[in-house]
This record gives sequence, C-alpha cells and structure tokens, in this order.
Amino acid sequence: MGENIGAAARAMLNFGLTDLRIVAPRDGWPNDVAGRMAAGAFDVITPKLYQTLPGALADCHYVFATTTRERGVVKPVFTGRGAGIEALTRTQQGQKIAFLFGRERTGLENDEIGLSHAIVTIPVNPEFYSLNLGQAVLLLSYEWLMAQDETPDKFLPTAASMPAEHEKLTIFLERLEADLEAGGFFKTLEQKPTMQRNIRALFTRADLTEQELRTLHGMIKALKNVQ
Amino acid sequence: MGENIGAAARAMLNFGLTDLRIVAPRDGWPNDVAGRMAAGAFDVITPKLYQTLPGALADCHYVFATTTRERGVVKPVFTGRGAGIEALTRTQQGQKIAFLFGRERTGLENDEIGLSHAIVTIPVNPEFYSLNLGQAVLLLSYEWLMAQDETPDKFLPTAASMPAEHEKLTIFLERLEADLEAGGFFKTLEQKPTMQRNIRALFTRADLTEQELRTLHGMIKALKNVQ
Repeated sequence: MGENIGAAARAMLNFGLTDLRIVAPRDGWPNDVAGRMAAGAFDVITPKLYQTLPGALADCHYVFATTTRERGVVKPVFTGRGAGIEALTRTQQGQKIAFLFGRERTGLENDEIGLSHAIVTIPVNPEFYSLNLGQAVLLLSYEWLMAQDETPDKFLPTAASMPAEHEKLTIFLERLEADLEAGGFFKTLEQKPTMQRNIRALFTRADLTEQELRTLHGMIKALKNVQ
Repeated sequence: MGENIGAAARAMLNFGLTDLRIVAPRDGWPNDVAGRMAAGAFDVITPKLYQTLPGALADCHYVFATTTRERGVVKPVFTGRGAGIEALTRTQQGQKIAFLFGRERTGLENDEIGLSHAIVTIPVNPEFYSLNLGQAVLLLSYEWLMAQDETPDKFLPTAASMPAEHEKLTIFLERLEADLEAGGFFKTLEQKPTMQRNIRALFTRADLTEQELRTLHGMIKALKNVQ
C-alpha cells in the first residue's frame, strides 16, 4: 500500500535511516499516496525497487524478519530493543543489516521468513494487537537510533540550569532560617531541628540554580514588607 | 484533531494503557474520524472529557510534558526511555502519572508546560523531525510497556528449540568426521585438526536441536547413497 511506503519512509528518516527497498509494490511505483504520507521524507530517501525478495536482500549480511506470531521455526527471536542493539553491533563490524516487513494484513509468508537469520517481535498488550506497518517501522527505527543515542535518561537542559554552588545555597538557607526565627516560625526549641531539616531537604532537593536563589532572596524580602 | 485522538487511543491500547483524557477537543466529542482511526480501541478505552488542563490533571501526582524544543525552563528532561522507567517507579509507589501531549502543529504552550513536573523529549534525527502526535503517543506508550516487559532481548522461541544435549552433538560430529575421513575430505594429516575444529565450530555455534541432528544424520546417509 502506498500509505505504508510513505509512512515507512517518514518513520525511518526521523531516526536517521535512508536505505528503503520496496519489493513488487501492489500499487506500483512511484505512488502519489506514498508521497503525501511521507511528509517530505522522499526528498532524502530514494527507494530502490525490486521484483523479488532475494534480489532486495542480495548484498545484506544479516536479515531480521518482523512478525507478530511464532512461526515454529528454530530461529533467534529478538525484541525490537534487542534487534536494535544487535543491528548496531553488526553494522559496526561492517555488516549490512536488513529489516524485513510484510504486507499490511497478512505480514510475511513463511518462505519469506525462511530467508531471514532472525525474527523480531515487538512486545505488546496480548489483548489488543493493532500495530500497522508504519508503526512497526517507526518502533524499530526508533530502537536503531536509541541503540546509538547517548542522551542521558534524565538531565537538566542548559548550562544556566546548573545547581548553584553549595556555599550560595548555605547562605540562602541561613538567611531564611534567621528570618523564620525572627518571624516566630519555630514554635518550640524541640521542634526546631526537625523543621529545619525538613526545610533544608525541600530546598536542597530542588537543585536550585543561582538565578533561582536570587529570586528566592527577593521573595523573602518582599514577604517581609507585607504588613 | 479527531485523527489524533483515535490514533492516540489505538497506540495506547497496544501497550496496555487505557486512561485517555481529552482537553477541549477542537472538533468536539464524540468524533467519527477518531472512531475510524482507533481500530476498535474505543471498545476498551472511554476517553474522559475536560474543559481545562488543570481539571484533567487534578488527581495526578506527576506530569510529564512532551515537547520537541528546549523551553529554557529549569525542569528535568527525560528521554522516552527514561520517562517510561520513571513513570513505572512512581506508579509502583502508588502515584498517578500523566503524559501530556499538545496540539498537532504547535504542541504545548509554555503555560501548559509550566503545569508539568518534567519534560520528555524523544531523541530523533536532528535533520528531519516529523513525528506526529499519534507517533509520539505510540513511542511513549511503548516505553511504558518496555519498562515492565521481561521478554529477554534475544531467545529461542519454543521448548522444541532447546539445543540438543551435548552427547548427541558429539555422536553426530564423530560420525560425520568418520564419514568425511572415509570420503577423503581431510587431505593431509597436518590440516586435519584445523579443519575438524572449523567444522565443530560451525555445528556447535548453530545451537542444533535434537530434531535437527536427526535431520543431519539423514542428510549424510542420503549423500553417501549418491553415486
């Protein structure tokens, strides 16, 4: 289906893949619907057209077949994540890797899977499985990029967001506590250490930047002006 | 857009998520286009409708805002993978987690991001970024399931695909080598140990099952019949 070819191209390019090969497309090629679905991906990707699957795979060293069902063949089965890592390792060794996707409704035939070295199956909700071809290409292309990506799982975005040096935090906390003391915040001497610890935990946990500490100093000043 | 709501529902349910909340939908609700895009997901998912974002988030303990751009705000930024793991950890502590998605073209406004605890940005090809709303929901729903999924990255699919016990492999290799010896395969006595080692590597690496060993025994027998 043209839609699927366009969606596949768009999904691939989002994650840096450009070598798209089409085997005997049902609706012929080129295809207007594919172009509309590709959101400009065909400016970069020029699909290669093949009449047979062995022809399309001729120069590939390792082939992953994507399938949703067990096929009763003895082949390693990878998750999408595992396949991304395996593909990257093999690529780094100079191998050319193919991911093979089947038809919209019926997927790959057993003989087509027979041409592949391994199977990829994306874990899904067993009670509702409705990934289409474009979505499967998206998830595997994503895993290909993620296998290489070095973005930390969690980070603070800019240099300006660096936490303040500890001394500046300490000065802020001491001033705050002095003002709170003066304002009668610490009811009893027994409670004071715990309350102090809780306040320190709150402001330390927040990874405050220098700018934010200045803002807090200003806020305290303003609050002290309120009658 | 109706399409996006339907695609989001379908993407969510594929990975076991069902709590879909819609804030002030442009095309109203219910929506025929959404229904067609959902591929049956609305049989399970009943979206809840809200007029304001704070209303939709009221009972949530932690909110991730999805965005493609740096917003210059000091908030932790997660990858999709990191967000999936963080969401799972918090859910296991009894927290209710929201993933917030913006409009098709313009995404989330800064004030909407201001309501969230953290930002999620999916790593993509910096030269071609064209993930639509449905695709972003798909990738984050996928990471939610992957954070919980225990499928090994690589495995052999069935009990029948267990490698044969080592003794059966040894018997096969010894018979094969005896037949090869008789057939004049080992040209010289010097080459024999290396050739033998290479053959053993090939058949051992293949994780042969008992059934496959029987097949190989039969193949050798048949080849010995050829005149």
